Amino acid sequence: MSTAKKVVLGFSGGLDTTYCVKYLSEDKGYEVHSVIVNTGGFSAAELQQIEAHAYKLGVKSHTTVDAVKPYYDRIIKYLVYGNVLKNNTYPLSVSAERLMQALHIAEHAKNLQADAVAHGSTGAGNDQVRFDMIFHIMIPGVEIITPIRDMKLSREVEIEYLKSKGVDMNFEKAAYSINKGLWGTSVGGRETLNSKEWLPESAWPTQVTETGTRNLELGFDKGQLISVDGQSFAHPVDAINHLHSIAAPYGVGRDIHVGDTIIGIKGRVGFEAAAPMIIIKAHHLLEKHVLTKNQLSWKDQLSLFYGNWLHEGQIMDPVMRNIEAFFESTQHNVTGKVFVQLQPYHFQVTGIESAYDLMSSKFGKYGEMNTGFTGDDVRGFSKIFGNQTVIWHKVNEE
Amino acid sequence: MSTAKKVVLGFSGGLDTTYCVKYLSEDKGYEVHSVIVNTGGFSAAELQQIEAHAYKLGVKSHTTVDAVKPYYDRIIKYLVYGNVLKNNTYPLSVSAERLMQALHIAEHAKNLQADAVAHGSTGAGNDQVRFDMIFHIMIPGVEIITPIRDMKLSREVEIEYLKSKGVDMNFEKAAYSINKGLWGTSVGGRETLNSKEWLPESAWPTQVTETGTRNLELGFDKGQLISVDGQSFAHPVDAINHLHSIAAPYGVGRDIHVGDTIIGIKGRVGFEAAAPMIIIKAHHLLEKHVLTKNQLSWKDQLSLFYGNWLHEGQIMDPVMRNIEAFFESTQHNVTGKVFVQLQPYHFQVTGIESAYDLMSSKFGKYGEMNTGFTGDDVRGFSKIFGNQTVIWHKVNEE
Amino acid sequence: MSTAKKVVLGFSGGLDTTYCVKYLSEDKGYEVHSVIVNTGGFSAAELQQIEAHAYKLGVKSHTTVDAVKPYYDRIIKYLVYGNVLKNNTYPLSVSAERLMQALHIAEHAKNLQADAVAHGSTGAGNDQVRFDMIFHIMIPGVEIITPIRDMKLSREVEIEYLKSKGVDMNFEKAAYSINKGLWGTSVGGRETLNSKEWLPESAWPTQVTETGTRNLELGFDKGQLISVDGQSFAHPVDAINHLHSIAAPYGVGRDIHVGDTIIGIKGRVGFEAAAPMIIIKAHHLLEKHVLTKNQLSWKDQLSLFYGNWLHEGQIMDPVMRNIEAFFESTQHNVTGKVFVQLQPYHFQVTGIESAYDLMSSKFGKYGEMNTGFTGDDVRGFSKIFGNQTVIWHKVNEE
Amino acid sequence: MSTAKKVVLGFSGGLDTTYCVKYLSEDKGYEVHSVIVNTGGFSAAELQQIEAHAYKLGVKSHTTVDAVKPYYDRIIKYLVYGNVLKNNTYPLSVSAERLMQALHIAEHAKNLQADAVAHGSTGAGNDQVRFDMIFHIMIPGVEIITPIRDMKLSREVEIEYLKSKGVDMNFEKAAYSINKGLWGTSVGGRETLNSKEWLPESAWPTQVTETGTRNLELGFDKGQLISVDGQSFAHPVDAINHLHSIAAPYGVGRDIHVGDTIIGIKGRVGFEAAAPMIIIKAHHLLEKHVLTKNQLSWKDQLSLFYGNWLHEGQIMDPVMRNIEAFFESTQHNVTGKVFVQLQPYHFQVTGIESAYDLMSSKFGKYGEMNTGFTGDDVRGFSKIFGNQTVIWHKVNEE
Repeated sequence: MSTAKKVVLGFSGGLDTTYCVKYLSEDKGYEVHSVIVNTGGFSAAELQQIEAHAYKLGVKSHTTVDAVKPYYDRIIKYLVYGNVLKNNTYPLSVSAERLMQALHIAEHAKNLQADAVAHGSTGAGNDQVRFDMIFHIMIPGVEIITPIRDMKLSREVEIEYLKSKGVDMNFEKAAYSINKGLWGTSVGGRETLNSKEWLPESAWPTQVTETGTRNLELGFDKGQLISVDGQSFAHPVDAINHLHSIAAPYGVGRDIHVGDTIIGIKGRVGFEAAAPMIIIKAHHLLEKHVLTKNQLSWKDQLSLFYGNWLHEGQIMDPVMRNIEAFFESTQHNVTGKVFVQLQPYHFQVTGIESAYDLMSSKFGKYGEMNTGFTGDDVRGFSKIFGNQTVIWHKVNEE
Repeated sequence: MSTAKKVVLGFSGGLDTTYCVKYLSEDKGYEVHSVIVNTGGFSAAELQQIEAHAYKLGVKSHTTVDAVKPYYDRIIKYLVYGNVLKNNTYPLSVSAERLMQALHIAEHAKNLQADAVAHGSTGAGNDQVRFDMIFHIMIPGVEIITPIRDMKLSREVEIEYLKSKGVDMNFEKAAYSINKGLWGTSVGGRETLNSKEWLPESAWPTQVTETGTRNLELGFDKGQLISVDGQSFAHPVDAINHLHSIAAPYGVGRDIHVGDTIIGIKGRVGFEAAAPMIIIKAHHLLEKHVLTKNQLSWKDQLSLFYGNWLHEGQIMDPVMRNIEAFFESTQHNVTGKVFVQLQPYHFQVTGIESAYDLMSSKFGKYGEMNTGFTGDDVRGFSKIFGNQTVIWHKVNEE
Repeated sequence: MSTAKKVVLGFSGGLDTTYCVKYLSEDKGYEVHSVIVNTGGFSAAELQQIEAHAYKLGVKSHTTVDAVKPYYDRIIKYLVYGNVLKNNTYPLSVSAERLMQALHIAEHAKNLQADAVAHGSTGAGNDQVRFDMIFHIMIPGVEIITPIRDMKLSREVEIEYLKSKGVDMNFEKAAYSINKGLWGTSVGGRETLNSKEWLPESAWPTQVTETGTRNLELGFDKGQLISVDGQSFAHPVDAINHLHSIAAPYGVGRDIHVGDTIIGIKGRVGFEAAAPMIIIKAHHLLEKHVLTKNQLSWKDQLSLFYGNWLHEGQIMDPVMRNIEAFFESTQHNVTGKVFVQLQPYHFQVTGIESAYDLMSSKFGKYGEMNTGFTGDDVRGFSKIFGNQTVIWHKVNEE
Repeated sequence: MSTAKKVVLGFSGGLDTTYCVKYLSEDKGYEVHSVIVNTGGFSAAELQQIEAHAYKLGVKSHTTVDAVKPYYDRIIKYLVYGNVLKNNTYPLSVSAERLMQALHIAEHAKNLQADAVAHGSTGAGNDQVRFDMIFHIMIPGVEIITPIRDMKLSREVEIEYLKSKGVDMNFEKAAYSINKGLWGTSVGGRETLNSKEWLPESAWPTQVTETGTRNLELGFDKGQLISVDGQSFAHPVDAINHLHSIAAPYGVGRDIHVGDTIIGIKGRVGFEAAAPMIIIKAHHLLEKHVLTKNQLSWKDQLSLFYGNWLHEGQIMDPVMRNIEAFFESTQHNVTGKVFVQLQPYHFQVTGIESAYDLMSSKFGKYGEMNTGFTGDDVRGFSKIFGNQTVIWHKVNEE
């Protein structure tokens, strides 16, 4: 009977987590159970290769979790409802998926009654905090092991170690570090390490192959994308993927996000998120037509917080459920069509059509006379609306 | 000695205010003093034509106020500090200039000891509220006369009346109603009266004549644009105008704003604001590098309110001075260069350089090991940072 | 067959609404249907007297709506959830009940297919706006008649008119104007018309008859008061009334609210709200123990708006439903006992007991060593938590 | 020439810091420079005793910093401007003074070019984070030594150690742990370690010796307390102390604060803060009369953050300077008299008098007819003010 302790390891097949398998099993004597959580970034073929790689490294078990739809249902849906763009730019592509991965890894560790859980994060980024926090919350008491962070391992040291263990894999460093998922692909490289440079064309995950103009019609139902150009989809994830296949070759949804990491330093990361950016801008335009001024204003404020707090790994704070309840209750009328124009490198949301449109000409056209009220009503309104400031100026000028 | 009452009339030379001159002087017996406040939309030649037109109509006096720099100093500066875009889209091009015009008209009325003040607004838009409120606040007791609103005059009735008075001017209706100023040009027309359509290419004030890519370097000093491509300007207004002349022919800074009017209806208006949009996006990027997370977050929240409240004509509420004090105190470090790329129909802010950049590699590179703290520090941080949520889940799962 | 137009009149039996019955029926020829909506301020005997008075004045029908429980379920519940005190003082006693009354009057007008609806408000307060707005929203197109406001009637003129019509009622003016309801009683008089004076002891609705100290135990279930001293109640309204009967004779929950009216002027009103103040403070203390820091903080912010917007009559803005959804979703754990101490003129909420208490000593005692984390964890936390400010000061001091 | 490393030690003369002196000098070979920063809690005699005790323990130097007025000028002033009460209860008595102490200790360490700085905090409270963070920010690179936290020392172990070193002091543990300062006195004890109990009468720092009612008149100038009952003071600190001497014997300003510590656990602490509570409530009432609705509302929101962020030790985040600029700019009109009534165990702010009072009857009395506007104006206002919600309901009910 084996007495080895069980560790569940978040495994991507890259250098860091490959190192972890060998280190945990051979140097530390753990029974290693690797798990990969797919949030939209891996093809079936890639997942099979990763599984084969894991078993070849000697894991006791390897598990692939298909989390794409749960990821949408649990997180992405609310990022759309909230039109969440961190610093008015970044759709939280990586932030959101790390949390989803951590939650599934924790669940796997709980199911296996693991003694420990391991992740390959370094000591310099956001991901370590996200993994640590979710594990503390979901599987308290389970030991968290982070070899790369704890031993401050360099790439070179890791490669040397793996070669010494007879591991055969591609050790070449890519010019750009890429992280792909349902809600966008991040790109880091030489240029993003300074404040000044833009990424070269070749660094972007999708190359621009489209020319000219293409019009799109997006269908939303209660805040969720359900159709593209009249074609309906069984699940919003399918609509997102379809929209991505159309829009990405136009090179839209690219930017560099400059943000505050959880650990206080500023960081810069490139991203390509054609479908997320189009969906958020389209959803927001539809909301501008169907929600009241104060609904829009409070959604803005709550979204600022929701995005930041999620980014900082705090998805399990119950306040997030409360904000989601707010968002959910605003979406009943966010139903209709949104029109979008694609051109190389930019897109434009051009208009909407909705049964809930508050701009309906039935209720008065802006700039034209209407029947709901008179100029006299507005004359009275202006007097009262400015009344306190009138009084203030009288008091202060006398 | 004349016993006619004096009225100061905000005068643009258009159909509505032309009507007002005749109506007020000939039908109502007022001594009419017309005034035009230039907030950047009129050339010297245009202002002369308007003056000649006023005198020909029979005004007692006509005054031209050059308010461009005061307009920047009193309002636009703070819109830049706050990165103010209403509904995340509209730089408040018209909203801001109406208030400035109303303030100057009120001052003129005070100086002339006028009995009344008049404006040509209809009863269906925002401007009437802005003029009314500023007049109530700045010149309480002075009667406000609004012939077009009060008599619900149609275009046709006005033309007939003016023709009967022998007025000779161009009575043809333009396909698009255009309002030009320092902070952008608005465009209204058939398409903006519904929710769905985009403006045709020909409707945009500046036609696209540039091709290819142009790089720009914008210099900011304490939050204000002071140079373009190394060329310094005596006043930010000059820098804005210079930037406009470069960028507008690329067709950037165009959009349609969908917003909540002060009077409760939704409205849609096209705008072209090449320089304002570039400046705000560039300024914001610079801020992301030099301000702390909480400075950025509070600026976001205060800006949402500041923009909305200004839009609703409430610039004289003393809370606006308090928010300006906040903004002002954040701008000390917003100094440096911002790099921008122009292409037809879109621009990209690509990077910055600043002595106050908090992303300086001296303090730790995101994603790379650094000297300011260790992985162990972050391990402790993650534990404490998630502690309350850990406790909450223990309490709620037991 | 009668051709008289129907008007539904909000009727309290006081001078103003008595005037309205006579004026509308006899001078204007309306068929008057009076309605009184009881939100907790009237006894059965009072309601009968008012009905008799209405019929004697000649109304076609008189209807009494018992709205106490609907009032709680639709409005008061959320004021408790949100710990809503306008300007940190006033439980919105009158604001909330006017809206409830307006909603029921509108419904009555709709049921009777009335041509018009009338209220007795003057032109100087908040109530006119609340009634007008609810009527515009709920029964658009129905004419709103406000004789007292429109004719600027003085008390003397009204009395003379009613005497001329042979109306026999008590025309004496009370020294203090009192408005009683479930959520408190307002008191206006000579002292509240200036900024300086306090109300005399005799002006307060409940005289202080209790001495000494009394301890109370309040039971909350999901945010609602359900028991007092172990005695359970079928509906929170019954618990509120019971608590009121115990606490009011201690003279607690009295204050003068200074606030911004909807129409821009400042106003001052005394109020006595023993049960509401105790419930809100007790509920809030319980929340401090069972909600997370960010739940508390967002509830604070949303409550500020919710209370102000309700006060301004905007209860039908759909954003109010969204905030209620937020509040509702926070209350699951707001269950437990709260301990209160009553003494003449003041009360103290002294402590709580709850299964959801996050302060449970199982998770670490403040100021004492605990097992959830170590001093080293906090050392790391402090370093990271202050990291951005460390960097900022390095950048700015070099 | 001495080669011993210098350490600056925050020293209160209590058990923990007494231990630190001996441990640092005798076991670790440091040259110990003790410093005590008086923020209002110590008398001259107590400070002399503490100095004598330090020298007797063998410190190289001992320094007493009189920080009371700088403490007010740098922190307390803004807590008054902001009416800051954490969780609507606690004036931040201890939180604020720890930061002030840390800032002075850091400055002393810088002046002495110390190699290290030490504080006596345990690993279970807020203070450790506040000291650590201020030291990281103000004297980066200087080692931070925390013997009590690091060695998890118990009271018993410390006493044994000190006795072994021949230290002669009072080793008896007080029933209640008391921390006194200008802005209040905290009280911790058996009862505050659970959620339920109230402190016994004897535990409160000031015993109630006054009976009956006393009226007070407080004079404010631009937001600061400058006089009490007509007696002016050279500095607000003197006014605060004078008010304290009058009010504390009434037993007012007592409460138990339940709050979220920086480290995630909930904590409870009793406090007595007669002068702070009266000043904040009086200042707030004055503001309700002289500030506009939106000034009050934004002050509320900024104060929530300002208090929480200060509590969490983040006083050096530059956003705090920005909020202070906002607060400062709101205080110009916060000038006038506030009337207060003291009775045993409670006080009531009863009214105000100010040249800036916006409630002046010159501008319309609430509930009475006035000259600034008419009922017709309000009728128009109500129509427009509710217009968007009218439209929303039409759209949603059809």
